[in-house]
Amino acid sequence: MSLFFEDLEVGQTWHAGPHTMERDRIVEFAREFDPQAQHLSEEAAAGSMFGELVASGWHTAAVSMRLMQQAAAPILDSGAIGAAIEGISWPEPVRPGDVLRTESEIVELRLSRSRPDRGLMKLKTTTRRADGVVVQVMTGVIFVPRRND
Amino acid sequence: MSLFFEDLEVGQTWHAGPHTMERDRIVEFAREFDPQAQHLSEEAAAGSMFGELVASGWHTAAVSMRLMQQAAAPILDSGAIGAAIEGISWPEPVRPGDVLRTESEIVELRLSRSRPDRGLMKLKTTTRRADGVVVQVMTGVIFVPRRND
Repeated sequence: MSLFFEDLEVGQTWHAGPHTMERDRIVEFAREFDPQAQHLSEEAAAGSMFGELVASGWHTAAVSMRLMQQAAAPILDSGAIGAAIEGISWPEPVRPGDVLRTESEIVELRLSRSRPDRGLMKLKTTTRRADGVVVQVMTGVIFVPRRND
Repeated sequence: MSLFFEDLEVGQTWHAGPHTMERDRIVEFAREFDPQAQHLSEEAAAGSMFGELVASGWHTAAVSMRLMQQAAAPILDSGAIGAAIEGISWPEPVRPGDVLRTESEIVELRLSRSRPDRGLMKLKTTTRRADGVVVQVMTGVIFVPRRND
């Protein structure tokens, strides 16, 4: 079932996960996109500000995006697409073996002024480790089609 | 040579690239992190809002991060680390074969109130295709160590 703009309400929430952050994928992702000492090996990370191997924030963001899409699949089925990101913060690090889950909540809905066939949804996605600690908060703006009655 | 907070000035700019967005890497990245029709195959994309295969915005963001790091390596050498993202927008799509370049400019510098050993740098990174069209604007906040005199 597809969800259109008219089907959404502020406060609606979707959950997704778990996703385990594998040590080797953390290192591979970092080699390709974010080759800083704290992401590349235990040895290199020991001398960094973190003192241990941690995942790139971009890896956490990409995994969170995937989880959010699984949870909010009915909205994406309607043809919704990402417009922009309003913020990402990484309050605590993600380590090898951490199990991540996401919670995505609609925090704002409004009609588009320029495009009467769609609305804007602001979605806040919080990513947590298994111990409940928040490792990422991301707020995105997504275009959602209106129902075509 | 490492650059510390005291070595930086608002307006300083770094350039990086080129990086070619390969068709198969676009599809692989999307399969892992952003499996929407417009990123997965030419056939699936034909029925999407884009009508053609385009890269995930998260792929463009990760590539831009890598380019930014190459250009700003002297700052990262000092032990600087990303604190947060204040915004990412994707005004135009990235297609297979597009050649990307980045321009990163310091737009704000201030001392940390809580941590006298470091400052905050706000860095705006603009990613362009070979034809000069802007495909991404990302503003990040980075902690930069102060010189240890």
